[in-house]
Amino acid sequence: MSERALKYLSDNRERLLERLQEFLSIPSVSTDSIHKNDVQRAATYLQTYLTEIGFQQVQQIETNKHPIVYAEYMEAGPDSPTVLLYGHYDVQPVDPIELWDSDPFKPEIREGRLYARGSSDDKGQVFMHLAVFEALMKTEGKLPLNVKICLEGEEEIGSENLYTMLQVKKELFQADFAVISDSGMVAKNQPTILYGLKGFTGIEITVTGPDHDLHSGMYGGAVRNPIMALSHILASMKNDDEVVTVEGFYDGVEALTSEEKELIKQVPSEDFVKATGITETVSEKGYTAKEHTMARPTFEVNGIFGGYQGEGTKTIIPTSATAKITCRLVPGQAPETIQRLLEAHIKKVAPKGVTVEVKKEKLSAKAYKVEPNHPLIQKAATSYTKAFDKEAVYVRMGGSIPVVEWIDHLYTIPIVLLGFGTPEDRLHSPNESFPLDSFDKGMETLVYYWHEITNG
Amino acid sequence: MSERALKYLSDNRERLLERLQEFLSIPSVSTDSIHKNDVQRAATYLQTYLTEIGFQQVQQIETNKHPIVYAEYMEAGPDSPTVLLYGHYDVQPVDPIELWDSDPFKPEIREGRLYARGSSDDKGQVFMHLAVFEALMKTEGKLPLNVKICLEGEEEIGSENLYTMLQVKKELFQADFAVISDSGMVAKNQPTILYGLKGFTGIEITVTGPDHDLHSGMYGGAVRNPIMALSHILASMKNDDEVVTVEGFYDGVEALTSEEKELIKQVPSEDFVKATGITETVSEKGYTAKEHTMARPTFEVNGIFGGYQGEGTKTIIPTSATAKITCRLVPGQAPETIQRLLEAHIKKVAPKGVTVEVKKEKLSAKAYKVEPNHPLIQKAATSYTKAFDKEAVYVRMGGSIPVVEWIDHLYTIPIVLLGFGTPEDRLHSPNESFPLDSFDKGMETLVYYWHEITNG
Repeated sequence: MSERALKYLSDNRERLLERLQEFLSIPSVSTDSIHKNDVQRAATYLQTYLTEIGFQQVQQIETNKHPIVYAEYMEAGPDSPTVLLYGHYDVQPVDPIELWDSDPFKPEIREGRLYARGSSDDKGQVFMHLAVFEALMKTEGKLPLNVKICLEGEEEIGSENLYTMLQVKKELFQADFAVISDSGMVAKNQPTILYGLKGFTGIEITVTGPDHDLHSGMYGGAVRNPIMALSHILASMKNDDEVVTVEGFYDGVEALTSEEKELIKQVPSEDFVKATGITETVSEKGYTAKEHTMARPTFEVNGIFGGYQGEGTKTIIPTSATAKITCRLVPGQAPETIQRLLEAHIKKVAPKGVTVEVKKEKLSAKAYKVEPNHPLIQKAATSYTKAFDKEAVYVRMGGSIPVVEWIDHLYTIPIVLLGFGTPEDRLHSPNESFPLDSFDKGMETLVYYWHEITNG
Repeated sequence: MSERALKYLSDNRERLLERLQEFLSIPSVSTDSIHKNDVQRAATYLQTYLTEIGFQQVQQIETNKHPIVYAEYMEAGPDSPTVLLYGHYDVQPVDPIELWDSDPFKPEIREGRLYARGSSDDKGQVFMHLAVFEALMKTEGKLPLNVKICLEGEEEIGSENLYTMLQVKKELFQADFAVISDSGMVAKNQPTILYGLKGFTGIEITVTGPDHDLHSGMYGGAVRNPIMALSHILASMKNDDEVVTVEGFYDGVEALTSEEKELIKQVPSEDFVKATGITETVSEKGYTAKEHTMARPTFEVNGIFGGYQGEGTKTIIPTSATAKITCRLVPGQAPETIQRLLEAHIKKVAPKGVTVEVKKEKLSAKAYKVEPNHPLIQKAATSYTKAFDKEAVYVRMGGSIPVVEWIDHLYTIPIVLLGFGTPEDRLHSPNESFPLDSFDKGMETLVYYWHEITNG
């Protein structure tokens, strides 16, 4: 079966690339209401393509903003597994437009890369799946397993309506496992099994002192300075060894096994210093920077403000100071528990003379992890290796993908993250692109994978 | 001598008040170039008045912005002391204008107060001096001592040109002592001897980490967070006991004598909690809030910023964070030394993985203090008591008046701060006003004071 489908993809490569470019030409920027019709056009494009391939129940599920495109193929029968394929057809805005070397919505191939907004995130990867299904249908007249397709148009604006829809339409989306291609490999042509994602949670701390900015000469010496109070609170939460010093923060965190440490070691390392311009890396005591970023929880102050921010000096004691904090969580850490622990710590250390308010951010996600030796993961590794002619590496990532947590939470099915992006893709930035190598070998991987699933 | 002058002031009260209102009607807002001509008009008004009184050498000394009005009376002869009288004729802007109950430049008397911008700070107090000189000239035909008058038009914009002029025209301004009426009493009708002012100095700390904002999921765990690093630095500089923990900060600071503690106790206390809306006061361990504000050095973070300041969360590690710090200094603390100590401390505690830059603010001032029992001070106290029928209190203030430090530094002469404002005057705010009690008894105080100086 694989050979015929692969030949089809090879024979039709130019036509498929053209068709992808047509898809990428639609400026489906979900955040901007001026593009509402374009987002709709992208949904309709998918609907047409899915119908053409031979999917059934092809429909647009209306939401409060942008529709979810649904389609299914259930003819593999009740003895075959059902996969839920998730992707998104909306894209990030293109600003600053002047930094693009070519029009973000006039796709252009240069030096083995396809340049366009959405080429990697995520329209390109969504298209690869559909092209593979087309190839299988055209050559075999059928798909080797049951497929449910869920493509949303709101991923770049926080998937506002997806969670509700996954809840409400539980029966419709129910499957045996899920596949998501909205991530990347650690390096070009380096098959990468992403078997864990961090969760996250956030709080905002506001320290309030006087009810108006005070003259520091008249009141300095009688009044607690809110910025200084906030600094003391923050400094008490993570020490210079990058260890979070909030009681209970690490409770329930799984120890890093020696197998995992070994897997992490094998991941080709990004040069953190070169990539970020820092003088040297720092990481949690007892862990390497790679271990910490991939598999240990983190605590970051994302922003701080208070008092005078202009030129020169203004001799005031400001009325308040605010810090924004987010934590990336690992399995064993519940976002709500972490928020509660942070708040308890802050209330405990808050100095007298100021009022401290903790606002818990609503958007949270639990970490996700699947065992690297799960058969669905092992089959993915085998397929990758066959297509890319290289052993897969296994990584956990510091990032969070809310949909992964939601599917895990609502459906409790394994989720396979089959990503083909590369670190050079410039997601969300000017000159987003996707390597044609990933396009070709990625589709090859998918052909092998569906084959492995059903015949392995 | 006193009686005749006092009778003159009493007989001419209405006329003098009208003349003051004419002066206050000129919108001499120094910061706004639209009022350049008005500032000039106020200078000319003074020039005319001084000439009329009988001063000599009346002139406008041109600067890069607004002129300094100079005049002198040297006919008391070489055996009489010479006083340098400093004041300013420019005023603060009036915004927000809608909060004024009457036009800031149409003076209005309501319930014993004269409402107008500049009524207290400082045109009203400058006028009182001139009216007293007028009274003495009209009744005695002479002044009891030599007088040099220096009235600037740039005080509200940082006295941009004054220091240079005091330096360049040193011979012109040279005197035996200086009198400044640009301050206040601790309460209405409470004679107040201000015998000490704090100095100040400032620095700005910028902590830089990555060369661009980083995705906290990708790099959290490998990179030092600049906001957290800055928090640790700040927290290391002042502890929860409000003690500055920078090595050497208190070196050379004079201990507070029991006499001074007693003087401070006698000052009617402002209710810090009520005035500022804080939950409770805090002050340096071992000192009361009053002692700390008046006589101990302070360290304040005036502003802080870094990273994301918008709504909700943005999961970044920011590229940098900045804090602005000013210290109020007491005698024994040199601003440059303090800046050096702060910088040394910061460099010492700066954690690895970030770059820390310390910018030293140029505008600094040393503290000023004159002995409370200095004859010039004692005579001021006697005069105050005679006029207000109340014992004077002795205060040191947390504020800084740059001109005091400059005169002290360039001329090394005693400086007497004879202020008649009250805490209710709303300097720099809408509805600035000055109590007529202060107008009447203040002029009486000045008549007694010139008499005490020359006959005491």
